Amino acid sequence: MIDITLPDGTVKSFEEGVTPMDVAKSISEGFARNVISANFNNETIEVSTPITTNGSLILYTWNDKDGKKAFWHSSSHVLAQALEELYPGVKLSIGPAIENGFYYDVDFGDQSISDKDFKAIETKMLEIARGKHDFKMRSVSKEDALAMYQSQGNEYKVELIENLEDGTITFCDHSTFTDLCRGGHIPNTGIIKAVKLLSVAGAYWRGDEKNKQLTRVYGISFPKQKELTEYLHLLEEAKKRDHRKLGKELELFTFSQKVGQGLPLWLPKGAALRERLENFLKKAQKKAGYEMVVTPHIGQKELYVTSGHYAKYGEDSFQPIHTPHEGEEFLLKPMNCPHHCEIYNTRPFSYKELPKRYAEFGTVYRYEQSGELHGLTRVRGFTQDDAHIFCTPDQLDAEFKEVIDLVLYVFGSLGFENFTAQVSVRDPENPEKYIGSVENWEKAEQAIINAAKDKGLNYVIEEGEAAFYGPKLDFMVKDALGRQWQLGTIQVDYNLPERFDLTYKGSDNELHRPVMIHRAPFGSMERFVAILLEHTGGNFPLWLVPEQAIVLCISEKYEKYAEKVLNLLENHEIRALIDNRNETIGKKIREAEMQKIPYMVIIGENEEAEGKISVRQHGGQDLGLISIDEFSNIVDEEIKKTLKTFK
Amino acid sequence: MIDITLPDGTVKSFEEGVTPMDVAKSISEGFARNVISANFNNETIEVSTPITTNGSLILYTWNDKDGKKAFWHSSSHVLAQALEELYPGVKLSIGPAIENGFYYDVDFGDQSISDKDFKAIETKMLEIARGKHDFKMRSVSKEDALAMYQSQGNEYKVELIENLEDGTITFCDHSTFTDLCRGGHIPNTGIIKAVKLLSVAGAYWRGDEKNKQLTRVYGISFPKQKELTEYLHLLEEAKKRDHRKLGKELELFTFSQKVGQGLPLWLPKGAALRERLENFLKKAQKKAGYEMVVTPHIGQKELYVTSGHYAKYGEDSFQPIHTPHEGEEFLLKPMNCPHHCEIYNTRPFSYKELPKRYAEFGTVYRYEQSGELHGLTRVRGFTQDDAHIFCTPDQLDAEFKEVIDLVLYVFGSLGFENFTAQVSVRDPENPEKYIGSVENWEKAEQAIINAAKDKGLNYVIEEGEAAFYGPKLDFMVKDALGRQWQLGTIQVDYNLPERFDLTYKGSDNELHRPVMIHRAPFGSMERFVAILLEHTGGNFPLWLVPEQAIVLCISEKYEKYAEKVLNLLENHEIRALIDNRNETIGKKIREAEMQKIPYMVIIGENEEAEGKISVRQHGGQDLGLISIDEFSNIVDEEIKKTLKTFK
Repeated sequence: MIDITLPDGTVKSFEEGVTPMDVAKSISEGFARNVISANFNNETIEVSTPITTNGSLILYTWNDKDGKKAFWHSSSHVLAQALEELYPGVKLSIGPAIENGFYYDVDFGDQSISDKDFKAIETKMLEIARGKHDFKMRSVSKEDALAMYQSQGNEYKVELIENLEDGTITFCDHSTFTDLCRGGHIPNTGIIKAVKLLSVAGAYWRGDEKNKQLTRVYGISFPKQKELTEYLHLLEEAKKRDHRKLGKELELFTFSQKVGQGLPLWLPKGAALRERLENFLKKAQKKAGYEMVVTPHIGQKELYVTSGHYAKYGEDSFQPIHTPHEGEEFLLKPMNCPHHCEIYNTRPFSYKELPKRYAEFGTVYRYEQSGELHGLTRVRGFTQDDAHIFCTPDQLDAEFKEVIDLVLYVFGSLGFENFTAQVSVRDPENPEKYIGSVENWEKAEQAIINAAKDKGLNYVIEEGEAAFYGPKLDFMVKDALGRQWQLGTIQVDYNLPERFDLTYKGSDNELHRPVMIHRAPFGSMERFVAILLEHTGGNFPLWLVPEQAIVLCISEKYEKYAEKVLNLLENHEIRALIDNRNETIGKKIREAEMQKIPYMVIIGENEEAEGKISVRQHGGQDLGLISIDEFSNIVDEEIKKTLKTFK
Repeated sequence: MIDITLPDGTVKSFEEGVTPMDVAKSISEGFARNVISANFNNETIEVSTPITTNGSLILYTWNDKDGKKAFWHSSSHVLAQALEELYPGVKLSIGPAIENGFYYDVDFGDQSISDKDFKAIETKMLEIARGKHDFKMRSVSKEDALAMYQSQGNEYKVELIENLEDGTITFCDHSTFTDLCRGGHIPNTGIIKAVKLLSVAGAYWRGDEKNKQLTRVYGISFPKQKELTEYLHLLEEAKKRDHRKLGKELELFTFSQKVGQGLPLWLPKGAALRERLENFLKKAQKKAGYEMVVTPHIGQKELYVTSGHYAKYGEDSFQPIHTPHEGEEFLLKPMNCPHHCEIYNTRPFSYKELPKRYAEFGTVYRYEQSGELHGLTRVRGFTQDDAHIFCTPDQLDAEFKEVIDLVLYVFGSLGFENFTAQVSVRDPENPEKYIGSVENWEKAEQAIINAAKDKGLNYVIEEGEAAFYGPKLDFMVKDALGRQWQLGTIQVDYNLPERFDLTYKGSDNELHRPVMIHRAPFGSMERFVAILLEHTGGNFPLWLVPEQAIVLCISEKYEKYAEKVLNLLENHEIRALIDNRNETIGKKIREAEMQKIPYMVIIGENEEAEGKISVRQHGGQDLGLISIDEFSNIVDEEIKKTLKTFK
């Protein structure tokens, strides 16, 4: 008999040779039907692999990341089989699971495939899947393995095997197909109910451009047809909502080859939107007792030597800026905290004056390789909605809660309703890794956990995820497409107060170290606007949208009345513009829809005669003939729904 | 007979050997009494120098810059004589006039002087002055000149003479004193009625620190005692108003050794004040049709090669920023125009869409040697209230006028009532120096002059002062101490549209080049705030001042009512704070005066009983017991006096 420990800590005894599937069935038949992969003592195994020692077992279903991985890895075997059958003579190389789906790199020889061939390959894959073939692992000697692939003339597999040690080589068989494989499959092909090939691309063997270019076939598969349909819809939606595409269409931002990659230029509409976001946060921050400061975008190298950033990131950063004379060295600032520490150090503080909360929309510059850059989410220059709170250890608890309130206010006003929090604390097994006293750490961790609990956050605690200088709380939001983004960080710091020798005079008349909190509810203006674009598909909350209304004339005859309407809207503080081009009303409406303007104000004979306006909402709903006051009320009510006052 | 041409163009005949003073007397005896120096054919001469050829003569009085120069130069001779008499054996070196006064560099040998000795020296100088000794120039041979100073053992004068050519050497005699001198004196010492020595400092002979250090004695002199008194008062006032001193006292900004010299850190009160200034201009700019943009603080070197800035300023600028990989080169942006050109280039424009007006509070970085840095007026990083207008040549006229309106609005709202304008146009003799068509230049120059005339500006036209790329208009304002500052520039540019290949489609369907206007009413936020501090002595206009009112409790008993008052003031949008320290009301008032807070709201028994407040104005005026509504009205009225709505 052997002892199997399950993730919840229960230990069960089984006969030696028990399989993960047997264990699953011992828990429940229903559960077992969903188990598709397993992990024993930190190694992925098949659900059919006999277990012969005591150990820890995890059973995976489709809902687990590792379950999906086994599912997609297995699907790549099916793809390979289909390709071999449809394109005799192809040579397979590698075919792993990836974050969403799988691929196989194939040498098609003289043959080639395109997306026109996808349908036939998918059909073949489903045909194989329906055969419910078991995936079966077996050990092979290096000699036999080499012999098999040498006989096929497959230099790729031969090269792979040559780098493996004899005795560790395994093949996986299913149906008539065999592949060199380390394992980690679903029980059989029958579970694969839906398959979609997504694209083909060139890929150098082993990623080296000196090698032969193979054809990489990307695909995805699901246990239910419905899930595939949903996934394809999501892909379509994500493409439509790509912030780079929307940013261009809505004229929010642009990039210039000459200015440099990863350095966004905010166009008028984007700059105005960004300013509204900033003002929104400034207003709340003012109420929360923050004070704005302004600091330069460079600092002497010495500043970052003091902060420790230079030693840690100097080599991989934008390199120092030299002066033409006097031999000085400056760095583009990668963060605002050292500057804020220097502001704190301008004068002495008493404990009665704390907390000090310095806020700045501070633009920072961090080098990223050009291949890593992506729209506004991965840039080389970005503006943090940064603030640093300097407080006594006793104030940490209350300050942390107030910061959470502010973050929740921001999320609520911008329509992010689905979020979780992660509290990163010390690794209890390596206490020597952290700076600051144990007492302070305990205080800080407890402050964060209390705050998270108190504010009713849905949070997890991650041990060992804290930075060496302090624990933190990160917010993860889900966007409208269910994609997860990290937004908003609150971080405790014991390190910089030490390095910058920050002090305050306590009630005991002695000097003490303040604690520092770094926080940024948006994270950065660039990234936040990008995520908001993808979350809303460009349909920003009404208080934030570039233009709230567009006045459309049915004909030139009503232009004068339209101008009057525009003025009245402006008097009501409604951001509006006018389209008085000599175009049909149909075209004007279509273009206003494209621009995602929430309200179309239509002006014609009837409207002028009655001194009213006809209003049509983005998306088509007709609000009918109403007065401007009525419209203004509608707009105000709509804004109030999302934009509350902070505290 | 010879012909003498006067500055107004009149030509008068005189006998050969006529002196400038004779010419002055021929104009009027009253005028002649004020003439103290002269210039003949572009050379400074004495008023007693005989004129022997035809030529142009300018006669200077104390009111001319050159008159003052002669006055102060002559005063330095008197200083030298006084020092020789009081400190026998001193060796003189050089003693020029400077912008405000004069100095003499003296080797005092074993002796030394300090400001305690000033009184005695001034007395001696006035004694000499009262002697009404004529300043008389005479030629000396090099041999005689050397012999005289060698006999005195004065190695400095010997070295000076050795570098002169025989036949060009002159001495100036007055009273018993003789000095090596090129000329340019007032008629006699009697005109000097008031003298003040200002300071002593060390100064290396010939400015070379390898040479001996001499003692530099600074002084100033005037033709009337009253003028000296005024000047000393001005000096005192300027010292009190020094923006570096006020900036520290009012906690507006600071500098940090670690961040780097010339890189201001804006403290909370300063940042808030700066933001109010920005919002004030933003509001006016919005009405004037500007659109805000946001651009990064760096750009690829390539960008500045295109703009021409790299070739012109590259060597003396902050050096290029290298990337750790990929070999890219960036520069800190020294101006915002190239970025705005790239924004313009994002999409094609039709003439119907122009003008485009892109505005940005853009922070730029320019290297200055550390010795050149001065508070906020000379820094290495500053934020321009920048904008670039892209328009058709036909729109230039109207655009220029609108920019002037905006600049005048800014000056008016900030209490700068005393200003002149300078229009810089081409040098008519060097038309080849300028880029752009003659037709466009004429149009632009005419547009500027028309605009200046139209707007009733007090302006001068300076030929040859235009940049090679376009004409411009600069505003010079006089501050409360009568000092002149350059503030606000409007500049036409034909160069960058060419270099960035900017175009618009004209009504003829062809592509044309737009004209660009650069403009910055403030100039830079840093410099403007510095000048405003010195102009107002820290008593900012009420709409701008950091705190408009401070609530002062007579005793702790009224703290609760004071808090209520503070809330009510905030509801009236009055920026107020509270001083509820346990200090006497006298001390609280004194400190509020120091902080230059415009209104002190005093709370005691009477105030609480009546539900009112006692208000005292900065400087002492008592507004008596009034209601908060009444006070709010006073504040509103006061603000309305300076802060008007733009258009």
